[in-house]
Amino acid sequence: MKNKESPLHPLDQAVALQPIDQGRWQGTTSQTYANMVGPFGGTTGATLLQGALSHNELLGEPVSLTVNFAAPVADGNFEVVVRPLRTNRNSQHWWAEMVQGGQVVAFATAVTARRRDTWEQTEAAFPDVPLASDLPAFTRDAAPPWTRNYDMRFVDGELLGEPDKDYPSRSRVWMRDQPSRPLDYVSLSALCDAFFPRIYIRRPKLVPIGTVSLTTYFHAGGEQLASVGSDHILGVARANHFGKGFFDQSAEVWSRGGALLATTHQVVYFKE
Amino acid sequence: MKNKESPLHPLDQAVALQPIDQGRWQGTTSQTYANMVGPFGGTTGATLLQGALSHNELLGEPVSLTVNFAAPVADGNFEVVVRPLRTNRNSQHWWAEMVQGGQVVAFATAVTARRRDTWEQTEAAFPDVPLASDLPAFTRDAAPPWTRNYDMRFVDGELLGEPDKDYPSRSRVWMRDQPSRPLDYVSLSALCDAFFPRIYIRRPKLVPIGTVSLTTYFHAGGEQLASVGSDHILGVARANHFGKGFFDQSAEVWSRGGALLATTHQVVYFKE
Repeated sequence: MKNKESPLHPLDQAVALQPIDQGRWQGTTSQTYANMVGPFGGTTGATLLQGALSHNELLGEPVSLTVNFAAPVADGNFEVVVRPLRTNRNSQHWWAEMVQGGQVVAFATAVTARRRDTWEQTEAAFPDVPLASDLPAFTRDAAPPWTRNYDMRFVDGELLGEPDKDYPSRSRVWMRDQPSRPLDYVSLSALCDAFFPRIYIRRPKLVPIGTVSLTTYFHAGGEQLASVGSDHILGVARANHFGKGFFDQSAEVWSRGGALLATTHQVVYFKE
Repeated sequence: MKNKESPLHPLDQAVALQPIDQGRWQGTTSQTYANMVGPFGGTTGATLLQGALSHNELLGEPVSLTVNFAAPVADGNFEVVVRPLRTNRNSQHWWAEMVQGGQVVAFATAVTARRRDTWEQTEAAFPDVPLASDLPAFTRDAAPPWTRNYDMRFVDGELLGEPDKDYPSRSRVWMRDQPSRPLDYVSLSALCDAFFPRIYIRRPKLVPIGTVSLTTYFHAGGEQLASVGSDHILGVARANHFGKGFFDQSAEVWSRGGALLATTHQVVYFKE
């Protein structure tokens, strides 16, 4: 797929998998998506999803994905091992694990399914916000490398800013891959982990944090995602509770046209 | 543990596991918690959690639990197979599966951790609602048997009622085990699946549904849960999106005193 005319997008490089065996691939962490320690979790999750989507027994499209970050991922090579746990007529349950040095460092479960046309309603409300083109792009020299792979335009709730009186942990942010890339499940799964940890919004100081478990529900079909193209998507993220070393956060992810593409939830470790 | 003076609570009977081998138990579905087809998913998830909590290598307390319902659970015996996937200094990642006839019918991943005292803040708002004691208990003769193991007192968003104009899929409901039972992680995990499917609130007609994946984040420590005792807890549940055969729902679960005990999310299959 790679050729001189169209080199792989950095995200596609980061999640690239070389087949070793049936359901078993090798990959390498990407310096482009480096985080404070190891790679950005969004690419780790996207790589595990990529494994399931590359499996020759795949049925349907992603409906849900839960990624657990079991241990620090070291820079360098890893193996991805994927297997269908259960295949039904119209849905399938998946296991995917990332292994380094014989140890599981991250793993995921996923559900894929054939989507059908049914009654549709969106209950969450698409917010009234300025367009991405009317907002400045986020920049922060001290931010880790992965952030430079996203064009983020904050409506409010910027990193380490003044917390909003009414919604102190909320951010509303337009986001897209940078350089731009057509939206698909792999990139959307990574974007769902691109929200800064809510504790840095609610209490604007940096402390060590790490996502423990991340769950994303995909509401859009593949064609609908493709129709978003490389447009910005809007994320609305907030926390529910901080305490005893953990907090949770939830977000809705919208197309510019007001389609709810995904909802995503995570629980995050924090120090102090 | 069972004796004539204090017979096991029906929930403890439903999740009871007889050791077969290291990390391997046998259990039996409970008619008391029967659903339309097979057992109530809340007890299936609680049984998988019970497996992890019974494991002799357990470290800490539950922080997150994701249960996938891979296939219908048949009435009768099952095996539960549990193993730690990764043990860190203060946290642990778990795998648990329920097997019938050599096939996985449900599985879970979980994170347990040693909780530490840290900064605490709750951002979600505890709602201003009447007390459980001022509300009638939910009854519905046609409802499946499991519902009779819960004392539910709806503030609003009752099953198959008139949808609220502003919050058409929302329910606010006081809940507790019936007969009453001191709250712990096992019972809380089941209560987190006791919210009726939001599609029956938003569009009050019965269609076939089934939870596909359920994720719960536990915010309360074990002592805090124990201090709730057998009091009612308040659930606030709503959907974000229905379409293409699936919908999601999210809920906060509160103590009467306004402590956020858990947040819980699920994606549900529906027909039509």
